[in-house]
Amino acid sequence: MGKEAIKTAIKIDFDKKPWEQAGIHNRWHPDIPFAATVKPGEVFHIQCFDWTGGQVANDDSADDIRNLDLNGCHFLSGPVGVDGAEPGDVLVVEIQDIQPFADKPWGYTGVLDKEAGPSLLDAYYPEAIKAIWDFEGIFATSRHIPHVKFPGLIHPGILGTMPSAELLAKWNIREKDIHDHHVEIHSPLMVARLPQENGTYAGNSIDPEKFAKVAKEGARTIPPREHGGNADIKNLSRGSKAYLPVFVNGAGLSVGDLHFSQGDGEISFCGAIEMAGVITLKCSIIKNGVKDFAMNTPMFLPGPVEAHYGPSRYLTFEGISVDENGKQHFLDVHIAFRQACLQLIEYFKQFGYSGEQIYLLLSSAPVQAHIASIVDIPNSCTTIGIPADIFDFDIMPREGKIEPMDMGSCAYTTTK
Amino acid sequence: MGKEAIKTAIKIDFDKKPWEQAGIHNRWHPDIPFAATVKPGEVFHIQCFDWTGGQVANDDSADDIRNLDLNGCHFLSGPVGVDGAEPGDVLVVEIQDIQPFADKPWGYTGVLDKEAGPSLLDAYYPEAIKAIWDFEGIFATSRHIPHVKFPGLIHPGILGTMPSAELLAKWNIREKDIHDHHVEIHSPLMVARLPQENGTYAGNSIDPEKFAKVAKEGARTIPPREHGGNADIKNLSRGSKAYLPVFVNGAGLSVGDLHFSQGDGEISFCGAIEMAGVITLKCSIIKNGVKDFAMNTPMFLPGPVEAHYGPSRYLTFEGISVDENGKQHFLDVHIAFRQACLQLIEYFKQFGYSGEQIYLLLSSAPVQAHIASIVDIPNSCTTIGIPADIFDFDIMPREGKIEPMDMGSCAYTTTK
Amino acid sequence: MGKEAIKTAIKIDFDKKPWEQAGIHNRWHPDIPFAATVKPGEVFHIQCFDWTGGQVANDDSADDIRNLDLNGCHFLSGPVGVDGAEPGDVLVVEIQDIQPFADKPWGYTGVLDKEAGPSLLDAYYPEAIKAIWDFEGIFATSRHIPHVKFPGLIHPGILGTMPSAELLAKWNIREKDIHDHHVEIHSPLMVARLPQENGTYAGNSIDPEKFAKVAKEGARTIPPREHGGNADIKNLSRGSKAYLPVFVNGAGLSVGDLHFSQGDGEISFCGAIEMAGVITLKCSIIKNGVKDFAMNTPMFLPGPVEAHYGPSRYLTFEGISVDENGKQHFLDVHIAFRQACLQLIEYFKQFGYSGEQIYLLLSSAPVQAHIASIVDIPNSCTTIGIPADIFDFDIMPREGKIEPMDMGSCAYTTTK
Amino acid sequence: MGKEAIKTAIKIDFDKKPWEQAGIHNRWHPDIPFAATVKPGEVFHIQCFDWTGGQVANDDSADDIRNLDLNGCHFLSGPVGVDGAEPGDVLVVEIQDIQPFADKPWGYTGVLDKEAGPSLLDAYYPEAIKAIWDFEGIFATSRHIPHVKFPGLIHPGILGTMPSAELLAKWNIREKDIHDHHVEIHSPLMVARLPQENGTYAGNSIDPEKFAKVAKEGARTIPPREHGGNADIKNLSRGSKAYLPVFVNGAGLSVGDLHFSQGDGEISFCGAIEMAGVITLKCSIIKNGVKDFAMNTPMFLPGPVEAHYGPSRYLTFEGISVDENGKQHFLDVHIAFRQACLQLIEYFKQFGYSGEQIYLLLSSAPVQAHIASIVDIPNSCTTIGIPADIFDFDIMPREGKIEPMDMGSCAYTTTK
Repeated sequence: MGKEAIKTAIKIDFDKKPWEQAGIHNRWHPDIPFAATVKPGEVFHIQCFDWTGGQVANDDSADDIRNLDLNGCHFLSGPVGVDGAEPGDVLVVEIQDIQPFADKPWGYTGVLDKEAGPSLLDAYYPEAIKAIWDFEGIFATSRHIPHVKFPGLIHPGILGTMPSAELLAKWNIREKDIHDHHVEIHSPLMVARLPQENGTYAGNSIDPEKFAKVAKEGARTIPPREHGGNADIKNLSRGSKAYLPVFVNGAGLSVGDLHFSQGDGEISFCGAIEMAGVITLKCSIIKNGVKDFAMNTPMFLPGPVEAHYGPSRYLTFEGISVDENGKQHFLDVHIAFRQACLQLIEYFKQFGYSGEQIYLLLSSAPVQAHIASIVDIPNSCTTIGIPADIFDFDIMPREGKIEPMDMGSCAYTTTK
Repeated sequence: MGKEAIKTAIKIDFDKKPWEQAGIHNRWHPDIPFAATVKPGEVFHIQCFDWTGGQVANDDSADDIRNLDLNGCHFLSGPVGVDGAEPGDVLVVEIQDIQPFADKPWGYTGVLDKEAGPSLLDAYYPEAIKAIWDFEGIFATSRHIPHVKFPGLIHPGILGTMPSAELLAKWNIREKDIHDHHVEIHSPLMVARLPQENGTYAGNSIDPEKFAKVAKEGARTIPPREHGGNADIKNLSRGSKAYLPVFVNGAGLSVGDLHFSQGDGEISFCGAIEMAGVITLKCSIIKNGVKDFAMNTPMFLPGPVEAHYGPSRYLTFEGISVDENGKQHFLDVHIAFRQACLQLIEYFKQFGYSGEQIYLLLSSAPVQAHIASIVDIPNSCTTIGIPADIFDFDIMPREGKIEPMDMGSCAYTTTK
Repeated sequence: MGKEAIKTAIKIDFDKKPWEQAGIHNRWHPDIPFAATVKPGEVFHIQCFDWTGGQVANDDSADDIRNLDLNGCHFLSGPVGVDGAEPGDVLVVEIQDIQPFADKPWGYTGVLDKEAGPSLLDAYYPEAIKAIWDFEGIFATSRHIPHVKFPGLIHPGILGTMPSAELLAKWNIREKDIHDHHVEIHSPLMVARLPQENGTYAGNSIDPEKFAKVAKEGARTIPPREHGGNADIKNLSRGSKAYLPVFVNGAGLSVGDLHFSQGDGEISFCGAIEMAGVITLKCSIIKNGVKDFAMNTPMFLPGPVEAHYGPSRYLTFEGISVDENGKQHFLDVHIAFRQACLQLIEYFKQFGYSGEQIYLLLSSAPVQAHIASIVDIPNSCTTIGIPADIFDFDIMPREGKIEPMDMGSCAYTTTK
Repeated sequence: MGKEAIKTAIKIDFDKKPWEQAGIHNRWHPDIPFAATVKPGEVFHIQCFDWTGGQVANDDSADDIRNLDLNGCHFLSGPVGVDGAEPGDVLVVEIQDIQPFADKPWGYTGVLDKEAGPSLLDAYYPEAIKAIWDFEGIFATSRHIPHVKFPGLIHPGILGTMPSAELLAKWNIREKDIHDHHVEIHSPLMVARLPQENGTYAGNSIDPEKFAKVAKEGARTIPPREHGGNADIKNLSRGSKAYLPVFVNGAGLSVGDLHFSQGDGEISFCGAIEMAGVITLKCSIIKNGVKDFAMNTPMFLPGPVEAHYGPSRYLTFEGISVDENGKQHFLDVHIAFRQACLQLIEYFKQFGYSGEQIYLLLSSAPVQAHIASIVDIPNSCTTIGIPADIFDFDIMPREGKIEPMDMGSCAYTTTK
């Protein structure tokens, strides 16, 4: 008698390439076949690669970050069909647990080369850097950012349902529009990654005709969209519930880009503590929920379990929408947030850290980024708070010159 | 023996107009004389008008909101000189308490007419509306938004030091630049309020020559700036410490725009629960702190005392930077946040509330607005979470059509 | 239009003696006439003396504590009749706020002489001592216990309904039984204070015949009982709801013994930060609730607003039921708790505090006392946790001898 | 490059009996040889049996609970030697994580037969009962107690260092004293379990002579003592630090009795959710800490990670030291706590639960038991608070008769 062991809906094999495996894909498209199916109420595991499918090593060089092949990213596990889910329903996904693999107790935070993708502070930190994090139970520490230790608010960066053909078409149109507009105005900015056949994976059970369609039309996995996707919401952690709209029969749930921890904003593109691991899920269905909840984008409930630092232990920095050159912008939250981050970095440099170290830390530690005010023309105000209790020394502002410590170094590129 | 009663550095008189009183001003300028001085370590009270100086009544019409004279706003209490503070120091302001006046146990939340100033959702809610909140001890309830009750995370919307002449000049230049640019391009948007002689108050002890200077050059009080000012940070509440840079001898601390409660973003311009009241402060000085902390904008530590709702009790909505017309924008946090707010409003309409009621609620209740991700091109993701425990009915998503309740109405304008 | 000011159901006058005033009483008895009546749903204030009616001064001598006249204590405000409450109902009392009087921003913690009443550590600290606390907004600091500052979790030590004649008789019998038993066995312990005519007050509107009855039979206010009473529950603070059984028509609610803060256990008899102040209440009635909830003693819901220290900031000490002489007791929680407190005191002596100072601190600061295990024969385990963040120096255990500081002194008796 | 996998200091084998394995013992004695050694700063795993070594099955009968062989309990993993630890030092044990075995996602809560050991409510629930809990990720649910679900605050019930011969002798004397006293007075109560040769295990590498000594003198593992031991402190969870005094060279750390969750008090003897699992630890040493901290019993710091329910979501019950027969006791916390528990049980019976179900729930769910006041003669007041958010229905007190639900049944004994 008693309950059976929990089933693993999607298993991965580290001895094979990600793209040689069933249940791994890297595009959003309704024609990708389900790699597994589950019943409502059933608890199941899904194993996940890190977002790059294993391109980054536990070493002291950022060369792998600089050389990342982004066409293949993200390597997602799925899609999983949920019995009975129909378009218009809401899929309730309960995240019951997430764990790194026991034999892979580490992760990494990176800043990509500026050309590879935007990061909040790429004007200041344009080159690839990296920090390795070791997991000690629930805690992360880094030889590249000493005197810091914190428990992970572990979560999937990506959790989404499969789009319908109609929704997919809408995405492709609107993203092409902004892309084309920037091309027209000769903007150097990469504003959107469009479908790209090169690097497309859709599991190993798809028939060639459908694969061609997926490769041609499949939405890239970088942005969050109406189905969920790469929302990078740091408190979608253990015990959370995500309410995702369903667009295809069976919903087609995929998950990946697991993060041991992330700061609000994930400000450097590869900013969280990226890891491979196992997520434990349970799904239920609310019939017709999309209409009944007037739902356009997902809703969620955070989990009850978190690290709790007293509110008065968050040293908090403000940013306003005046840029680094003193130029006034109109209620620009992006600029205001950048200023808050830059302020924080300057403050911590006084203790001996490099700017690069704090940039990596800000991306990965449980910092809180709030929109404080958004109507006080012309300045919006954003705040970023960092918990004092993740440091093993006193970071609080006090009278007297701070004595800088030897803080070592994060990983830089070593070859050109 | 024993301690003396706490001194009131600035007293106000509700039987007189705000501008007839010492210690009330509405511009930032180094020539405004100190209305009081305090010593480091001394605890003192400052009494404050509501931000409009009493223009809004506890009634069921939004006419007063529509007719607000904004030239006189905000009515601030100060400046208070702090013995020994010098330019380059950091003024540590400990907010020890804030209370409404015992005989004025109410406040209000308003949305201004679209012409009067921007609000996040002015495209949807262009006309003046209002809700009155009654204070029952630490709680607020509103006859205009029934079935809601929450304790206030009470705070000053505005807390700042006086700028130096140099800093003031910098502000005036950068704000005029953006203003002029928008005039040039015939933008209908009001992007900044420039100095304006009409409506200037600088206390009643200033000599006429200096007053003329203040009226001509004095910075308006609407935006937050490097000195603090109208930051509208909702958790700068009881027990917080603000670290403000000092630009003039004596610092010149002013405070006002008290809020019984506010949601992150204060999304409707007059969005918090505005009130008159008394703030209790204690100041200390960190010599040369501006340089030692590499400080450009204020830092702060929130207080230890808050209403705590379990993290899993925040029903959370996402927004991405695709606007209401389906147009894709590039990592625009402002648009993403607007979408999250609109989603939340639509959800709550199912329970019988009007959009106006929830717009007012969102501005005033302790909602949390986070920047979730800001690098996942082309979509940023913001979230807004509202605590279920402020409602006296169950707001959680469940199977089955929601039965709407009779929710009455907020206050609208009654005359034209 | 708008709401009227909140009514004050019971006002006190500091220029008169407590016992000269309507609405002040110090016994529980159904014949004490209501001093005011309120309606369900009505918000009202009640003003309260400190528990001693003003016998303790803001000075540096503990003589007043030693000389306390306990027959008159506690001076309670009430009883207040609630329209419609009947025996068998549950009175829901919402504590909306508690504030000290603005012109009395101080309180005190005392340890009584051992003869006057038991305190947890009277074997070690048998003589009267005192600490004065100054209120700085929401914070308390003491010149008698330096380097400590914390916000008060303000609450009424006493909140109760009037007993019926039957219930009162039951109390008097059971308390007399234990008292008489201890007299019989020549125990030196004072185990219960029985009704005593001397010192009885019942308001100034009671007729002489009824007063005689109250004086003869009225239950003393020291113990908590089925009606509530002196429960000294530290988180019955702002925003709490107490569910009290009703025994007489109109319920007869009385309140007093206000505490600015208290540690779990209130381990020294006069252990909280005792103060005079104003409490804001709202009552409602649940008909027949006593039966429907199978209620024998009160229930309550704490309020949502507290000071929050991270859980990992509570330095926690254990005690087991082996006494100071090494003698084993059987699952005795009282002894285990005493050991935990003694351990804590010894630890803090290393920093330079006297045992007396920490004894007073333990009684008044927001320490958490948990029953950890109660079945592991023969030892129960209790824990007491003290938040590190109330100290302005680092209290955490670290390698190396602690350097004691000059910690001054608490107040002792000065005359014999 | 990079970090090696974390070492497992003690491995167990479920295919063998616990007592056939190295690294499993069930007595405290300095002669038990170390089963492994670790270095300060080294992270390591220890695998643990459940406290009974596998005597309880995942089924619907409580026969196994009734038939438990307690002589063998608890089966502890250890002792582990820590390099460099010497008597007088403090061993800092950081609990970095605890997990159930992936293929054993379940645990149990039991109440023993009254004869087997005391439980708080054995007068009411004298027979063996059981509830099985299934682990869904971080959550526990039970087919025996429906409509309840909560995340575990997972912890070791037992964590301790090895006593010196002197300390062990002291324990044996004081416990024999109380045992003999009760025998003398013909008390039917089992007050202490003394050393007993039958059932002793000390690992499989001990030489026979030493084994005989351990069997004769070894302290039983039931009570917590000065070295730690069976403290059953529910928040000694992930991220906690325990400060344990060292009595022998190498400290000799042992751990076991893992709990997925436990309520304060663990009121039924086998009251937590008992499980087998893996604990991840890291140790450091504070030289001479016992003297420097005046330490007699362990100290600890809880971890930062917990489930957080809003304080106002804890429905809280009071108990006073008047027993069920109306008899007055003097400040008896044990009796007061029992009353609070009984009150809670009666309340929840209204919803359809049996008393047995709630008794098991109280022992295992994250309930908070506080000593509220301990000086208000003759009544102490204790409180027990249960979080509303662990139920999937509304437990709050409301007007109107509660409609009981079908709550099924917990497991009872099926044979005699």
